[in-house]
Amino acid sequence: MSPERTFRTAVVGATGAVGQELLKTLEARGFPVSELSAFASPRSVGQTVKMGKHTATVRALSPSCFAGIDFAFFDASDAVSTEWVPEAARAGAWVIDNSAAFRMESDIPLVVPEINGALVAERLRKGVQDWRQRVFSGPNCSTVQLALSLQPLHRLFTIRRVVVSTYQSTSGAGAAAMQELRDQTQGALAGVKANPKAFSHKIAFNCIPQIGGFRPDGYTSEEEKIIQETRKILGIPNLRINATAVRVPTLSGHGESVNVEFEKPSSVAEARQAWSAYPGILVQDEPMKKIYPMGHCLDESGVQSAAGRDFVGVGRIRKDESVDSGLCFWIVSDNLRKGAALNAVQIGEQVVRSIH
Amino acid sequence: MSPERTFRTAVVGATGAVGQELLKTLEARGFPVSELSAFASPRSVGQTVKMGKHTATVRALSPSCFAGIDFAFFDASDAVSTEWVPEAARAGAWVIDNSAAFRMESDIPLVVPEINGALVAERLRKGVQDWRQRVFSGPNCSTVQLALSLQPLHRLFTIRRVVVSTYQSTSGAGAAAMQELRDQTQGALAGVKANPKAFSHKIAFNCIPQIGGFRPDGYTSEEEKIIQETRKILGIPNLRINATAVRVPTLSGHGESVNVEFEKPSSVAEARQAWSAYPGILVQDEPMKKIYPMGHCLDESGVQSAAGRDFVGVGRIRKDESVDSGLCFWIVSDNLRKGAALNAVQIGEQVVRSIH
Repeated sequence: MSPERTFRTAVVGATGAVGQELLKTLEARGFPVSELSAFASPRSVGQTVKMGKHTATVRALSPSCFAGIDFAFFDASDAVSTEWVPEAARAGAWVIDNSAAFRMESDIPLVVPEINGALVAERLRKGVQDWRQRVFSGPNCSTVQLALSLQPLHRLFTIRRVVVSTYQSTSGAGAAAMQELRDQTQGALAGVKANPKAFSHKIAFNCIPQIGGFRPDGYTSEEEKIIQETRKILGIPNLRINATAVRVPTLSGHGESVNVEFEKPSSVAEARQAWSAYPGILVQDEPMKKIYPMGHCLDESGVQSAAGRDFVGVGRIRKDESVDSGLCFWIVSDNLRKGAALNAVQIGEQVVRSIH
Repeated sequence: MSPERTFRTAVVGATGAVGQELLKTLEARGFPVSELSAFASPRSVGQTVKMGKHTATVRALSPSCFAGIDFAFFDASDAVSTEWVPEAARAGAWVIDNSAAFRMESDIPLVVPEINGALVAERLRKGVQDWRQRVFSGPNCSTVQLALSLQPLHRLFTIRRVVVSTYQSTSGAGAAAMQELRDQTQGALAGVKANPKAFSHKIAFNCIPQIGGFRPDGYTSEEEKIIQETRKILGIPNLRINATAVRVPTLSGHGESVNVEFEKPSSVAEARQAWSAYPGILVQDEPMKKIYPMGHCLDESGVQSAAGRDFVGVGRIRKDESVDSGLCFWIVSDNLRKGAALNAVQIGEQVVRSIH
């Protein structure tokens, strides 16, 4: 991007795990910032955050705090977004919101730029009549990587049904949750009993089959997000899809085991070719060389692990012989990057391109 | 069991993770041992193992080492079982073999006692003509808990298709692998680079989507075992079933996310009732109280975690709306107990009862 204009840019939730990643990503991708504002919860007020040559003192959200802001990136709670996204948009900012607050609203695009980035330009061509038309939602982290891996398959073979089980890292629950894993693990190795705070149970050396709260039908909010958001992003309102979300004791990178059934005949070779050509996807599928996607593999193996990287890794690609036409595979992506910060900045870039 | 007879009993692989669990389980369940023999690989020879009042000095396997043995429990490599199981059975021992060496042989029963324990008595009623009729195989650890959870559902609703993704602990790879997780984790917390030995890659804070070696079709040997052994145990040779096996950084207890499609109408209530009445299964499904199966949860929550216990925990039970009739659920069991040692001892008990 070689911008003609620069923009007064705000990050809400600037001191969180995703907020920090947002600042890094805005800088790394050269987002055209003229001036940086940072907002966070009261306990972070007064801290300083940096983005390239810009620094900002963290402030609390307050009436008229968005005056003059061109872009506001929100990575805060649903409650904060519900209250403050309208404020920011009414003040004239383009808002990219990573919370669940507006994702399922029919008039607000839920965007993974590689899949449906065209929605941004389309929206802007129609002109902005009210604040809602200045808001774009980014999906749940585990949804982004799933939708991205499914889109090229749907184009080729027409998806009939999806079953996904997730292996989600603690970073999805924020920086304090990552520290809880580290501290609890240290404690567990020393024989100390756990005292869970960020999670419902001990996470050290344990898998917890609960992410988010439970609904009356027994599904968690996380599973519901994966199901509903994937339908919206792929534009298949009745997509048959089931999800089980599990927290695993890793620090970063969400893994997902995916089984897909198709209407049309499918093949591993065609899928691999389509994924290889698809932006944002890296095929890591040489099992004989022990190459497959992993979250955080700092060994000498030479496998590019997902942590700190932008791609969605796809591997363990094989025919699912339990249906007439099906494939199964394993995906990993850095949930803070493509799952949140990177996706949000990419949406921002689409807006910049569209308003030029 | 109040046995009239006692038996000279050998454990092959006595110093391994499962071997140790076998000795504990034989003692805890009062298996009628008159004399204990212990065998292991050369590096363990000379060590002493205990089982209640019995002690044994670990010996290497050698010709005629099984002379006089009534029961031989094998938990060793496929190669060791292939060579020595016939020796033990020819010497007159009843052999319970936990390796994969004989599991898929059509004339050797693959036994999960709760499901098909009747095969043992049936075999003995026919009389023993050759050594193969003295051999019973125990399934792969991740298969036992899956088959046990599926059997009551199949009776009720007739299974059409199964999709399973596993979350397998390091204990499935043995005691050294568990130590590798501990050491690597300690190292990772201190910033030390991993040097994987027991696993293909770093396991600390990482998930590895490979258990066993790869076959030409891209499936691992572990996935193949889950698929083929489940078919044999349930007696459904053409069962439509797909498996993805993943190693996660936990110490003990295998988790599995299971989706099942049925021929007949199904319901959560009927499934829960059937599981509650089924031996070896513990329904742990009170999500609002944060009660669901977990492997190793030493916190104050009061949830009975699977590690060190005998049951297969079933929870997160819900309707799978992506098929006309389907359920999904989450199971956890101690892979060293019901997944290996306990199941083997239960087979031994069936033999004892049948020869009385």
